[in-house]
Amino acid sequence: MKRMARFLPILDWGRQYDRGALQNDLIAAVIVTIMLIPQSLAYAMLAGLPPEAGIYASILPIILYAIFGTSRALAVGPVAVVSLMTAAAVGQIAQSGTAGYAAAALTLALLSGLFLLALGLFRLGFIANFLSHPVIAGFITASGILIATSQLKHILGVKASGDNLPEMIASLIENLGQTNLITLVIGVAATGFLFWVRKGLKPALRRAGLSDGMATIATRAGPVAAVVVTTLAVWVLGLDGRGVSIVGSVPQSLPPLTMPDLSPELLRQLVVPAILISIIGFVESISVAQTLAAKRRQRINPDQELIGLGMANIGAGFTGGYPVTGGFARSVVNFDAGAETPAAGAFTALGLAIAAIALTPLVYYLPNATLAATIIVAVLSLVDFGILRHAWAYSRADFSAVAGTILLTLIFGVETGVSAGVILSILLHLYHTSRPHIAEVGLVPGTQHFRNIRRHDVHTDPALLTMRVDESLYFANARYLEDKVLDRVTGDTEIRNVVLMFPAVNAVDLSALETLEALNERLRDMGVQLHLSEVKGPVMDRLRRSHLLDHLTGQVFLSQWDAVEALTPSVCKGGAPGVRDAAAH
Amino acid sequence: MKRMARFLPILDWGRQYDRGALQNDLIAAVIVTIMLIPQSLAYAMLAGLPPEAGIYASILPIILYAIFGTSRALAVGPVAVVSLMTAAAVGQIAQSGTAGYAAAALTLALLSGLFLLALGLFRLGFIANFLSHPVIAGFITASGILIATSQLKHILGVKASGDNLPEMIASLIENLGQTNLITLVIGVAATGFLFWVRKGLKPALRRAGLSDGMATIATRAGPVAAVVVTTLAVWVLGLDGRGVSIVGSVPQSLPPLTMPDLSPELLRQLVVPAILISIIGFVESISVAQTLAAKRRQRINPDQELIGLGMANIGAGFTGGYPVTGGFARSVVNFDAGAETPAAGAFTALGLAIAAIALTPLVYYLPNATLAATIIVAVLSLVDFGILRHAWAYSRADFSAVAGTILLTLIFGVETGVSAGVILSILLHLYHTSRPHIAEVGLVPGTQHFRNIRRHDVHTDPALLTMRVDESLYFANARYLEDKVLDRVTGDTEIRNVVLMFPAVNAVDLSALETLEALNERLRDMGVQLHLSEVKGPVMDRLRRSHLLDHLTGQVFLSQWDAVEALTPSVCKGGAPGVRDAAAH
Repeated sequence: MKRMARFLPILDWGRQYDRGALQNDLIAAVIVTIMLIPQSLAYAMLAGLPPEAGIYASILPIILYAIFGTSRALAVGPVAVVSLMTAAAVGQIAQSGTAGYAAAALTLALLSGLFLLALGLFRLGFIANFLSHPVIAGFITASGILIATSQLKHILGVKASGDNLPEMIASLIENLGQTNLITLVIGVAATGFLFWVRKGLKPALRRAGLSDGMATIATRAGPVAAVVVTTLAVWVLGLDGRGVSIVGSVPQSLPPLTMPDLSPELLRQLVVPAILISIIGFVESISVAQTLAAKRRQRINPDQELIGLGMANIGAGFTGGYPVTGGFARSVVNFDAGAETPAAGAFTALGLAIAAIALTPLVYYLPNATLAATIIVAVLSLVDFGILRHAWAYSRADFSAVAGTILLTLIFGVETGVSAGVILSILLHLYHTSRPHIAEVGLVPGTQHFRNIRRHDVHTDPALLTMRVDESLYFANARYLEDKVLDRVTGDTEIRNVVLMFPAVNAVDLSALETLEALNERLRDMGVQLHLSEVKGPVMDRLRRSHLLDHLTGQVFLSQWDAVEALTPSVCKGGAPGVRDAAAH
Repeated sequence: MKRMARFLPILDWGRQYDRGALQNDLIAAVIVTIMLIPQSLAYAMLAGLPPEAGIYASILPIILYAIFGTSRALAVGPVAVVSLMTAAAVGQIAQSGTAGYAAAALTLALLSGLFLLALGLFRLGFIANFLSHPVIAGFITASGILIATSQLKHILGVKASGDNLPEMIASLIENLGQTNLITLVIGVAATGFLFWVRKGLKPALRRAGLSDGMATIATRAGPVAAVVVTTLAVWVLGLDGRGVSIVGSVPQSLPPLTMPDLSPELLRQLVVPAILISIIGFVESISVAQTLAAKRRQRINPDQELIGLGMANIGAGFTGGYPVTGGFARSVVNFDAGAETPAAGAFTALGLAIAAIALTPLVYYLPNATLAATIIVAVLSLVDFGILRHAWAYSRADFSAVAGTILLTLIFGVETGVSAGVILSILLHLYHTSRPHIAEVGLVPGTQHFRNIRRHDVHTDPALLTMRVDESLYFANARYLEDKVLDRVTGDTEIRNVVLMFPAVNAVDLSALETLEALNERLRDMGVQLHLSEVKGPVMDRLRRSHLLDHLTGQVFLSQWDAVEALTPSVCKGGAPGVRDAAAH
């Protein structure tokens, strides 16, 4: 039972389910369902799919996540960034609106699900960690800009295309002459209203005495109000006859059973996008889940989350959906509305199923411009240029990763952007660790402490060079250490002993070991002995398996004080100190 | 003057040049010239080029290196691995023996030279460090096998081709029926003789009282003896008329002035091979140069070495050569023969120029099988499977990198092999550092030391969790730390304070900073305070530029002792210790 509960978290919370939890879950489900209807339609439009795909993608996936996922409040379904990535991936294979396009989206969901499931089963969730925060932040900001720009065509009522910012802008400018003024009025009014709801209504409700959570929920109902008002306007005034593009007829049906296209050529084209979508989706989902879980001192199991999201995506692939993940906005609403268990998600799925059967005729006259407005207002909260200032203040390397990812994503699109961002942050990390901090140290008089000779007045002996290495040694930085030591020794013929202090060296790889062996030999050829001090236990265990210690011309000292006592007793006794002046360096 | 000497090291040693140095350099040059004549012809054959290309590649490049390089003893010219890589790169563009093939080799040398020069001028030599020792060792071993296998066709006197081991072996087997028996006899005899010279003659000469250096020099003359004997045999017995393939006529000329082909298509095809050849060549050269320099307490400047090698390759591109680098065998002979300054190289160039004009008719009857034998014997010393055992004993990750590089190079050829090796060692490094050692620690009774609770009997307090982090924190491992801490805290509701000990944390990147901020918030939501202790100076400087310290629910303690004193005074006084048992974990 315990063991099954690991793979089926539902067995864990399901046993304690009671009337109180049921009531809370039901209320949360009603609120989330109302919010999800326009959002699902809008994200499907963003993904280039028919509106019902957004609703279908929220039904079976939510139920599967409720069974396999570990988060109590996460709401799974279509999200903005993944919808954009779906459009970018599938758009390279088929024309939006064709059967091939929808079929490819199913395959993408299935591949993505299988990849997530495999990561979870083989406990490989750590690979998501290679997506650094700067890359994620840059990518999300750039995606927000791309998404908002991609929706301007619906606000203007023109046709336009493009997978990256230059293409999108060029295409919009080219088609600007076709602008439909009524569409533009609806789009601008809806956008303005939704901005006001978010910026003005919420503070007003707070002042009126509503709790933060209730104010958030009321605010999330804004899109529903916009949808109702603009739909009625189009219907009453017959605006669809005057060029306003509308959602039109949506099939009244439960999610259909669909079979993803598994032709090898299609799989080959979609495998890389599926991996990128999976990882981006997982990172977004896990960070939402962890934030919400911590608020109730609950734990998320990342490997099990991969399994839950994997099953959700496989479900989407077989029921007319497209790639899904845990969304921030919907999860927060679910949490604030009081959802206690994943059962809330199952009730939401039920609500959406009812909507799919009964309510779809009501959105016939819904203008696409309204959906575009809801997307634009939602994604602009993703855009955060503050991260640039923040990263600049913290470190230039992190800033470069953020700025690089933003620019590459805007200019070359989502796939190139995120891939290049990952490579960039790995290279920056390697570059950074390839030039470790290495300090020449001396004895602080009257103590057994050793400090940087450039920062402190310390005792040194001209025949003894002590260097403290402040980084693990591996292939990318070992030669740098060797160069530093050899530069010092060849420039100063008084030196007879070199001590490398290793208190912060957590690992020494084979390349670094061989560099230390070479350094030992080269120093020996110069008549200089090499010693080590303060080597950590695990590093020492490793070194014992090599020949370094057999050939070392000097010794390994437990502490630097031992080393100085053995090699230059005069310094310990305070005799003839070579006091260095910070200004001299 | 001082400043010019940085870019023209010749100004440094040239001023002190005297009769003694001249004499030593001249003797070394004569010995090296004699050794280089057969070697240059052999490596040109390996590279798929006419024999004179090997000699031309040793003339101007040597002189340019003598002017710009910093090593006093390095001998620049064609080497085995770079010749193989040249054959692999140029072989994809043209058929060996055609004018297009030789022209592409010139372009490859020029590109490689420009790349090295750029690295040197922008001081980017550190990028060579990303080639880890396991990758280099694996690559050199696999290259040795590929080179030796590629020469078997000359020993057998058959035609065969292939860029990787499976292709080469298949091609050899297919053509085995065409074996020329006389060629085989010459080839086997020459190979056997050269092996004996290396394995048997050198120890014999040592026993006869020759110094190690002199014995090495005498041994290096072995190929010259093999060349003379087999050439005479072919001439006297007219073996070329009986199917023995010979070098044939070589133009009697100084190096011609050549113009590399600069068509954009060719440049595009050669740019990646040129980069790989440059880096491999640089790594080989710098390690030889550093080994020899250390023996005389001299220093190599890696950035200036890049400039020296860059100029040498540019020179090769304009004088009928192909990519060159500092070779191990020729440099050791040069050093052992007593070369004191780069002038020895210039005299060697003069000797080779004389050979190019006067001696080329003498090699007309030289059988290719003899050249193949010299290559096989030379490169088998590169093959070292001991590195596999050595790496296995030291660490599984390093072993994987060696074994992976050997297999990939043998199966897919040199370019794929070395590229995949670099990627593999970076991924292994990232994987390794992504799961850092994190130990829960407690107070060793009666001391102020804190040790791993799993290894030592220590005092702890159930309300205080202290974790020591033994690795710098960055994007790939920050979440791992967060998971570890949250797992502990959610599983143990007694915990009220968490202290992270950072004595071995040398850096915290933006991703890790944000993870710490998130951890702080999540712990706060659980009613747990987060503290830091023993944070290093540079890390603390960085953290002060962020908001972490403003929002931190707890404090930053200078030492872990301070933290324990402040948070759980009872533990310090030895009261009510929660002694943990190692067996319990």
